[in-house]
Amino acid sequence: MDDDPLPHAAGNGLLHRRLFLKGAGTLGLLTAAQALSQPRALSQPRALSQPQEGAAPVVAARPPWSQAPGRGMSGYGRPSAFESHVQRGGIGSQPGTDGSGASRTPLEQLEGTLTPSGLHFERHHAGIPDIDPAAHELLLHGLVERPLRFDMDSLTRYPMVSRLYFLECSGNSGALIAPQPADRTCGELHGLISASEWTGIPLSVLLDEAGLKTAGRWLVAEGADAAMMSRSVPVDKALDDALVALYQNGERLRPENGYPLRLFLPGWEGNMSVKWLRRLEVTAGPAMSKDETSKYSDLQADGSARLFTFPMAVKSVITSPSGGQRLPEHGLYQITGLAWSGSGAIRKVEVSADGGTSWAEAALDEPVLPKHICRFRSAWQWRGQPGVLLSRAIDDSGAVQPTRASVLDGRASGAFYHYNAIQAWRVSAEGDVRNVFT
Amino acid sequence: MDDDPLPHAAGNGLLHRRLFLKGAGTLGLLTAAQALSQPRALSQPRALSQPQEGAAPVVAARPPWSQAPGRGMSGYGRPSAFESHVQRGGIGSQPGTDGSGASRTPLEQLEGTLTPSGLHFERHHAGIPDIDPAAHELLLHGLVERPLRFDMDSLTRYPMVSRLYFLECSGNSGALIAPQPADRTCGELHGLISASEWTGIPLSVLLDEAGLKTAGRWLVAEGADAAMMSRSVPVDKALDDALVALYQNGERLRPENGYPLRLFLPGWEGNMSVKWLRRLEVTAGPAMSKDETSKYSDLQADGSARLFTFPMAVKSVITSPSGGQRLPEHGLYQITGLAWSGSGAIRKVEVSADGGTSWAEAALDEPVLPKHICRFRSAWQWRGQPGVLLSRAIDDSGAVQPTRASVLDGRASGAFYHYNAIQAWRVSAEGDVRNVFT
Repeated sequence: MDDDPLPHAAGNGLLHRRLFLKGAGTLGLLTAAQALSQPRALSQPRALSQPQEGAAPVVAARPPWSQAPGRGMSGYGRPSAFESHVQRGGIGSQPGTDGSGASRTPLEQLEGTLTPSGLHFERHHAGIPDIDPAAHELLLHGLVERPLRFDMDSLTRYPMVSRLYFLECSGNSGALIAPQPADRTCGELHGLISASEWTGIPLSVLLDEAGLKTAGRWLVAEGADAAMMSRSVPVDKALDDALVALYQNGERLRPENGYPLRLFLPGWEGNMSVKWLRRLEVTAGPAMSKDETSKYSDLQADGSARLFTFPMAVKSVITSPSGGQRLPEHGLYQITGLAWSGSGAIRKVEVSADGGTSWAEAALDEPVLPKHICRFRSAWQWRGQPGVLLSRAIDDSGAVQPTRASVLDGRASGAFYHYNAIQAWRVSAEGDVRNVFT
Repeated sequence: MDDDPLPHAAGNGLLHRRLFLKGAGTLGLLTAAQALSQPRALSQPRALSQPQEGAAPVVAARPPWSQAPGRGMSGYGRPSAFESHVQRGGIGSQPGTDGSGASRTPLEQLEGTLTPSGLHFERHHAGIPDIDPAAHELLLHGLVERPLRFDMDSLTRYPMVSRLYFLECSGNSGALIAPQPADRTCGELHGLISASEWTGIPLSVLLDEAGLKTAGRWLVAEGADAAMMSRSVPVDKALDDALVALYQNGERLRPENGYPLRLFLPGWEGNMSVKWLRRLEVTAGPAMSKDETSKYSDLQADGSARLFTFPMAVKSVITSPSGGQRLPEHGLYQITGLAWSGSGAIRKVEVSADGGTSWAEAALDEPVLPKHICRFRSAWQWRGQPGVLLSRAIDDSGAVQPTRASVLDGRASGAFYHYNAIQAWRVSAEGDVRNVFT
């Protein structure tokens, strides 16, 4: 590496994140590795581009699609047929059902921070109800002055707010508690997280309409699916940033995300953001519903269970290079991935290429928003040496993403919720990338 | 209005934006009109909700979709069948074609700031080519040290950046130059704007790879469609924030947005963000292509034409209430809409309910980002009085959205590009909303 003119920041070829930072005097935009491609440094980085040089600068022959007018316009578009392989994966349901289970976002095939609504992960307990909005109501009752019933037309009259938030199932990444690392893709392992723009009515507004009684300390939220998914929510969260969400990524919610309305609790385990919301009952205590006792509670090695572990902890994962991918040749690579925290914004992401012996700080795409996904990027000089790629996120509360050993310590065997350990991807000398435990 | 306990900020029922601002001590989130619904103020705002009060707080009867498991999971989801009316509208093409024209985003049916990719506006000059990415190349040549040819696999090796940006056709809102106001919806009039997360390679990186010669001051960008759409771009823009975009809202570009790659010039007229990009030629001067001379130039009353009017000017429009809608009853309404500027971020949006006699500042959803759409909101007390609703945006350069008269002053008759005047919606005593000129 001594002949490498690029600024190294950690072992095994990790370069300095300033390669991704544009100089002062701009709008503060990150415009990636301008310095990477300064002519003096180009001898190595040019392997990055695979340009076929030397060809005469003539215009390429016109392909068929340049020779005749293309397709017409449409009312609602779809992805290219050449992208039909980009699908939700890891679909698994309860035996005998096709809708009681989960599907996962193919994280390694996406870029940026948002998830297309069609690829948002799914987790249903009794399939997807096709609800007629004209026949759907929200009942708000219990320890309130005025029990209220809202139809969808009345709800759309209320003031709304739009925010970018991630949504993560608390069972995400749970396969990694297995004693041996499964040979899976990033999305198959970690794809129970997605991010969207959510628009809805602050729950605090509806509670004020109903008049919260002082004895009311919890809400029980119930869905209109056949599982009657029910979860208990502390009133403090309801009055803080909870939404009754009607829109996702600009349009009405998709059926698999709760059409025509869902609860949305930013940063908290996805199961609590009850879909197909039909009822909110204000209570003095939690309901201890089946969905928060037999499930979505965290069994400990001593036989006790932790209940109401609401916020999703600080976490990150490298999406590229990641499991199942192969580096086609030696050269410069972008290491990129996602980081998030249910407690606030990501402050820093560090990346290692030597299994954690040394770490380099990654560049973060702006804006970095609380309880939303953040995209990080590092540059890696790969000259055929094996490596183990890690990412470690730190949020603005100071919480640091833990090791696998630390996450498993004290857990009962088989307890898979809230797994947020550092993910390790091993790159072989041949460039093959695989899930490993470190 | 004297008996109204709510804080008025302007004439004809416009309330103060602090109704939308949450108190200190939060994460800075806007949680909408908490104060609106304080019990003492409720006598009027409660009309907002249309709750059917007094019903016993019993659980509603279980509808059919609560009684049996729902549909199964899918690889790629779709909107609810109950939302099938939400489509791109105002589709119009050249006679004899179905793809050479435009379709428009139904702004009045959406919320938040992002546009679902399936509803992004379209503007094509020879339909939508279905490009095989394995057969597509980008040629970068002209006044460079090393002409380069990139295939799609090589491009995906490059460092990328993700940003939220609007895209607006310079012909947007052009129907409003007509002498009489057309009775159209918001989307039909203004729907040639959409907003997405765009991810791509900074063009500066590719230019550095090729080695820009000092004589190179412009680039000519050419698309692979049958129209060979070609536009000239100053090198300064290319080195600033221009992207070669591969992803939109997390997934690969949709065909109608340039699959497999497009140029993206944040804040500039949409036509320049050449779709299906196949060629970038560095030149000393602009190409004077048909697409920047016979079209996309601004004819003046004196017979001259303004060329290269690149940035889209500061603009806003109220999406609700808007043309074709009807207020169902007297009560409190949210006035909401979109604001944007190609020169930077929106600093302020003002709303009037009395045709411009008085103005109140609107609340803005966070984060407010440069060259992205910003959602504004105001509260309006409508007691059956007629009104004319206006919005006026001001960007962080200090530019103020102009009146219609000011925009038309000095223009040739029929010159419709770059129309950014204040939109007026008249609300009748019956609650009907119509496009009017003020």
